[in-house]
Amino acid sequence: MNVDGQPYRTIWLSDDGAAVCVIDQRRLPHQFVTAQLRTLDDAVMAIDDMTVRGAPLIGATAAFGVALGLRADPSDAGLARAVTRLIGSRPTAVNLAWAAREVAAAVQPLPPAERFAAAIRDAQRICEDDVESGLRIGEHGADLLAGLKVANRPLQVLTHCNAGWLAAVDWGTALAPVYQAQRRGMAVHVWVDETRPRNQGASLTAWELGQQGIAHTVIADNTGGHLMRQGLVDVCIVGADRVAANGDVCNKIGTYLKALAAFDNDVPFYAALPHSTIDWNLPSGDTIRIEERDPEEIHTIVGLDRNGALSRVRLTPVGSAAANYAFDVTPARLISGLITERGVGVASPQGLATLYPAQARAHQQAHPQ
Amino acid sequence: MNVDGQPYRTIWLSDDGAAVCVIDQRRLPHQFVTAQLRTLDDAVMAIDDMTVRGAPLIGATAAFGVALGLRADPSDAGLARAVTRLIGSRPTAVNLAWAAREVAAAVQPLPPAERFAAAIRDAQRICEDDVESGLRIGEHGADLLAGLKVANRPLQVLTHCNAGWLAAVDWGTALAPVYQAQRRGMAVHVWVDETRPRNQGASLTAWELGQQGIAHTVIADNTGGHLMRQGLVDVCIVGADRVAANGDVCNKIGTYLKALAAFDNDVPFYAALPHSTIDWNLPSGDTIRIEERDPEEIHTIVGLDRNGALSRVRLTPVGSAAANYAFDVTPARLISGLITERGVGVASPQGLATLYPAQARAHQQAHPQ
Repeated sequence: MNVDGQPYRTIWLSDDGAAVCVIDQRRLPHQFVTAQLRTLDDAVMAIDDMTVRGAPLIGATAAFGVALGLRADPSDAGLARAVTRLIGSRPTAVNLAWAAREVAAAVQPLPPAERFAAAIRDAQRICEDDVESGLRIGEHGADLLAGLKVANRPLQVLTHCNAGWLAAVDWGTALAPVYQAQRRGMAVHVWVDETRPRNQGASLTAWELGQQGIAHTVIADNTGGHLMRQGLVDVCIVGADRVAANGDVCNKIGTYLKALAAFDNDVPFYAALPHSTIDWNLPSGDTIRIEERDPEEIHTIVGLDRNGALSRVRLTPVGSAAANYAFDVTPARLISGLITERGVGVASPQGLATLYPAQARAHQQAHPQ
Repeated sequence: MNVDGQPYRTIWLSDDGAAVCVIDQRRLPHQFVTAQLRTLDDAVMAIDDMTVRGAPLIGATAAFGVALGLRADPSDAGLARAVTRLIGSRPTAVNLAWAAREVAAAVQPLPPAERFAAAIRDAQRICEDDVESGLRIGEHGADLLAGLKVANRPLQVLTHCNAGWLAAVDWGTALAPVYQAQRRGMAVHVWVDETRPRNQGASLTAWELGQQGIAHTVIADNTGGHLMRQGLVDVCIVGADRVAANGDVCNKIGTYLKALAAFDNDVPFYAALPHSTIDWNLPSGDTIRIEERDPEEIHTIVGLDRNGALSRVRLTPVGSAAANYAFDVTPARLISGLITERGVGVASPQGLATLYPAQARAHQQAHPQ
């Protein structure tokens, strides 16, 4: 998508092939800065410190991270270490483990000397697949939005956190339908949940929508329920960090509250995700490990000060404790449907099996009831 | 309650009687500063700019504001102007209009020369009534908490915004039961919703709980649903800015989302309020005017910078719009009960009539069905 009118992806190989380039998302929306990852450590750090974030993008970064690890140590031990370290960098999004293991499986049979180049190719394949998924999610989602369109005013979409192109390689998941709707000439307005504590909505979603010229309004996370009661939201679309085999959706903390409000007001509530976000091994969302992050993300916040510098200010009293759960689980019963690259399906075992018959069958054979 | 171990109220008359003293709540938790209100303008400004906030406290400030207006102009016109300006300073909390009209009714029959002194006395009476209400709300609420107590761990209370003593004259509403429970030796831990955009939870509730030595943890507003799903909340208690005759509760934006989560997880959800918060003329919450505040409260935030100064930083991209609704309405069906100075009642016309038979009867006579 565009940054100041220039097309970008969130992750790409440098021209000389020596570095993996990413956008430093910690500095948005105030500064647009790219960073180069040259080692496994760089990749692990970029995921851990949230230079990159978003389930599909941390998957792509992990895929390249395996390659960077193999450049330094292409042995079986080096491969295993790279996969283990990348998977350990953040616990909740399943795309991370999926992508690292995908690359590992592709290069494992090869002689060590061929592994780095093969891993780079596989990471690039994963990126291209993600772009293709985003495009398809966008098309299926835009069909859905067209069906919800209310006459005489822009369609009102509410989203939480950032599941736009910045969360993926391009297009995104939750925002991909909005971008396709825009290309079809539909008028859309997006209510952007600020998404405390890291403000991915206020900083990333607002920025990327602004860059593509899509009308949007930032709101405090507390606001969506009121908007829905007032009839000001036509549809909610969020991303997902992990979808269980029963259709439960694990996503950014606060998603569950919006799903409750949508359900209470008959507003359709969709999660948009590619196949790599589905955890076929997880019977329900109740056992997903929810990342707990540094309480400092609650105590302090970074913004642009009056001198134009990024400045961190303290919000809470000295001596107060804070807790920082990064995700929550929305039960499938609250979800109107899953928007995937295969189409829109019901958030249920049957719905997932209809969208992904081969994967569902493979999992059933591996784990017969 | 205590500030650094010294007992304070949120509003009091200066020793010479010439000024109304308040705590400048915009500077908490970082700085404890008091301000003096000497004119009607000062009182209107203090309510408008949120030097004082919280439904009972803005009621008390409005009561003193009428007196300050009468000092400059004790005529009928001056009285009417003071009431009109105070009622116009913020639209949602009904205590404001109630208190201003209460004082006006008390002094209207008097000769102008006696009005100022009488108004000060009536404002002081309103303050004493509020303190008494907070004490009773605390006692009834603590009885309720004792019944919810889980063995072997502190009772887990979740609250939204600030409805502690800083929101009233003393004791508070939602936190009054917590303070009384503490006095009875009960172990209580409070989950404090940050309460974006103005962060009254992170700044005021956390500060006042810390000052009284009550265990608490600040969380992002997005977090409460996850905590309830995990069984980490025993009860929610919030304040109220206006309660309709059918039991609908208008309170700080985001309250509705927590009520939905409580309902979905069988966690009891209470609103605590004195009689002055009930709007007998309002059949349901749907017609309450919801204040829309300056979008700058979404775009920017104030905190303590590394030099120890209060500093405002920008959070959103330039060019993004923001919307700032200050309150929402929680339907009575989601509310387990109302904790009032008269006891705990059902959030319904019958429940309110049981608690306040005289008021309900008076309203019924004025507006026969």
